Amino acid sequence: MRAVDLIQKKRDGLALAQEEISWLIEGYVNGQVPDYQISALAMAIYFKGMSARETQDLTMAMVKSGQQIDLSAITGIKVDKHSTGGVGDKVTLILVPLVASFGVPVAKMSGRGLGHTGGTLDKLESIKGYQVERSQADFIKQVKDIGLAVIGQSNDLVKADKLLYALRDVTATVDTIPLIASSIMSKKIAAGADRILLDVTVGDGAFMKTLKEAEDLSQTMVNLGKEVDRQTIAVITDMSQPLGQAIGNRLEVLEALQIMQGKGRQDIIDFICQLAQLLLELAGQKRSLTEIKEHLTNGQALQKFEDMIVYQGGDLNDLHRPSAAKFVTKILADKNGYIKELPALTFGLFAMRLGAGRAVKTDQLDYETGIVFYRKVGDRIQKGDLLAEIYSNEKLSENLLTEFKKMLK
Amino acid sequence: MRAVDLIQKKRDGLALAQEEISWLIEGYVNGQVPDYQISALAMAIYFKGMSARETQDLTMAMVKSGQQIDLSAITGIKVDKHSTGGVGDKVTLILVPLVASFGVPVAKMSGRGLGHTGGTLDKLESIKGYQVERSQADFIKQVKDIGLAVIGQSNDLVKADKLLYALRDVTATVDTIPLIASSIMSKKIAAGADRILLDVTVGDGAFMKTLKEAEDLSQTMVNLGKEVDRQTIAVITDMSQPLGQAIGNRLEVLEALQIMQGKGRQDIIDFICQLAQLLLELAGQKRSLTEIKEHLTNGQALQKFEDMIVYQGGDLNDLHRPSAAKFVTKILADKNGYIKELPALTFGLFAMRLGAGRAVKTDQLDYETGIVFYRKVGDRIQKGDLLAEIYSNEKLSENLLTEFKKMLK
Repeated sequence: MRAVDLIQKKRDGLALAQEEISWLIEGYVNGQVPDYQISALAMAIYFKGMSARETQDLTMAMVKSGQQIDLSAITGIKVDKHSTGGVGDKVTLILVPLVASFGVPVAKMSGRGLGHTGGTLDKLESIKGYQVERSQADFIKQVKDIGLAVIGQSNDLVKADKLLYALRDVTATVDTIPLIASSIMSKKIAAGADRILLDVTVGDGAFMKTLKEAEDLSQTMVNLGKEVDRQTIAVITDMSQPLGQAIGNRLEVLEALQIMQGKGRQDIIDFICQLAQLLLELAGQKRSLTEIKEHLTNGQALQKFEDMIVYQGGDLNDLHRPSAAKFVTKILADKNGYIKELPALTFGLFAMRLGAGRAVKTDQLDYETGIVFYRKVGDRIQKGDLLAEIYSNEKLSENLLTEFKKMLK
Repeated sequence: MRAVDLIQKKRDGLALAQEEISWLIEGYVNGQVPDYQISALAMAIYFKGMSARETQDLTMAMVKSGQQIDLSAITGIKVDKHSTGGVGDKVTLILVPLVASFGVPVAKMSGRGLGHTGGTLDKLESIKGYQVERSQADFIKQVKDIGLAVIGQSNDLVKADKLLYALRDVTATVDTIPLIASSIMSKKIAAGADRILLDVTVGDGAFMKTLKEAEDLSQTMVNLGKEVDRQTIAVITDMSQPLGQAIGNRLEVLEALQIMQGKGRQDIIDFICQLAQLLLELAGQKRSLTEIKEHLTNGQALQKFEDMIVYQGGDLNDLHRPSAAKFVTKILADKNGYIKELPALTFGLFAMRLGAGRAVKTDQLDYETGIVFYRKVGDRIQKGDLLAEIYSNEKLSENLLTEFKKMLK
């Protein structure tokens, strides 16, 4: 087999056979097929797509390129949850302990943030002492002991995805459904859960900009899960404005704690309870939203969360302390009216510039910085109302402040 | 500037600006833009094309990536000729001395063969002693002294093309007109001639498979020449069957000698005279076909050819000796009829397997092997007629012989 012939085949709109896809992925991982052939192939896939069968074969070839986690030592139906990324998305921090509080084991591997999107690992690492690196044995033991764990993805998992993702990122071949779907699902399948809930975000702050794209991606991933007997559900959620109130690692942890103490905005509480209901159903438990909300607000979810923080080395005192950002700039309404839009991408990038996110992978984060919104889209405002607080470790320049105010429409 | 943004721009069907194209080509040549970004860009160009202005900018950026030959020391209008490649294409061997015999200086750089297509350099190197490597000063001195030279392309010419061509070859991004046109024209422009004649081959044995493609490529290259004041003419010629009678390096030199001795098939003689008329006209000489044919057959072209061979170190005795191939297998007609087709690609690949061509660039050639056809498409044949001779250095296997006979329809 020659890579150039397979690139040409895809370029000409033909489907690649299973053994051709396996050969390419194996060759790429072991260095026999070079980057420059894979990037040309990725661009051909961008233009010509992949059939359901090809996407399936690609996903499984990627799964086989690395370690596969075996969670069978944990009793019960193991569930996993994945979001395609967003701004202010602290759902995992709350959903995992909430579901675990019903006795459903959650063994979850999370990722880091890049660009305007945040990552669960970064949020957890804003808690002093919290360890995200765990051996597979320790990971399984933790779930057996306390019913939940959120750790970093092992470097040995889906080796092809690490290479491929880095390559796509610099060759303008990220936005193509077969490659997005296989990247996500190969990691979920390799991570070993029996049932998977996908939160496919759509809108300004998400990868998927239109509902049609989000639907296509969802359908592709649900089919992929079905083909390998990992029952998968996808929900499509709005990411046109930041999720909840906070953007920024420490600030999002604090918002998660508030929600698990019965505080927090009703919209995000309702949303999380709905996701929890789906996850519980995947795990074989039918629960009413009332029951779930009860667990969320009466301290049971919070207890699970604290159990996990402690088990993974985190400091409970540090967990509950406020942001240590040196400057908190309050933004007040200068007239009466309504909040028309809060574009998630714009605010995500603004928070990134405060240090809350990474422009490139090697950037150091400032865990304490970010934004807290006190009004969301559709909310009525009166002159003088507190709209938002900006947490920064350098004094906000007039320019930045003016820019921020312009972003609030 | 970031390469990924420029790839995305092209991917999304937008035109790249001149400075963006220059930046990419310069970066590629100096190693700052890696292969894997250029191959993704090439694939995006394959799907989205380039405007005339972009192709122009790409061509000139490539010209600037290397040395540019200055032929101004040579008096008169310097002409160059280029073929997009074919099977049995010995036109340069004859056309260059024929035009030079009218006093038009020809300073030509040629290339080597790959796959089913031959290269003029290889054919000349089948002559004992002939040197294709010449300094720029020697090249110019030779043209001033005897009016013609055919040498190998300097390694310093159009550095971007060497890199880009090798990359396109392994990433299925060869067949796209902006990249083909800029590759050819950048080399022609850098090589310094004032006027350029392009022989764009079409059909089975050519890169361009359809007349439409050949027309598009021709128009693109003629426009490119015009933009930089290098008057360019393109002729589209048939490459559905091998050109003339011989395929194979030594065998093609012998056919060229025959033609320059007034022998040879009328069709190739007429073709070469027409090309010569165009080249002479480009150089400001209006000559009748009769006059040109006179020069071709009365020994004047041959004298120029021999002058060149001697000047570049070639052995005149060796020039005129027959092929030293150990085996000559005669193929006779087994029935009466007509030759229906002689697919150029098929016979070109067959000759390659005899050693006359290279499967990969590093293959060693066997100069003596090849095929000579005694009947061409449309010729009437009678049972027992000599159709072809196969020159080989190993005895032809029964399988190969059977295969060859099947190819003759």
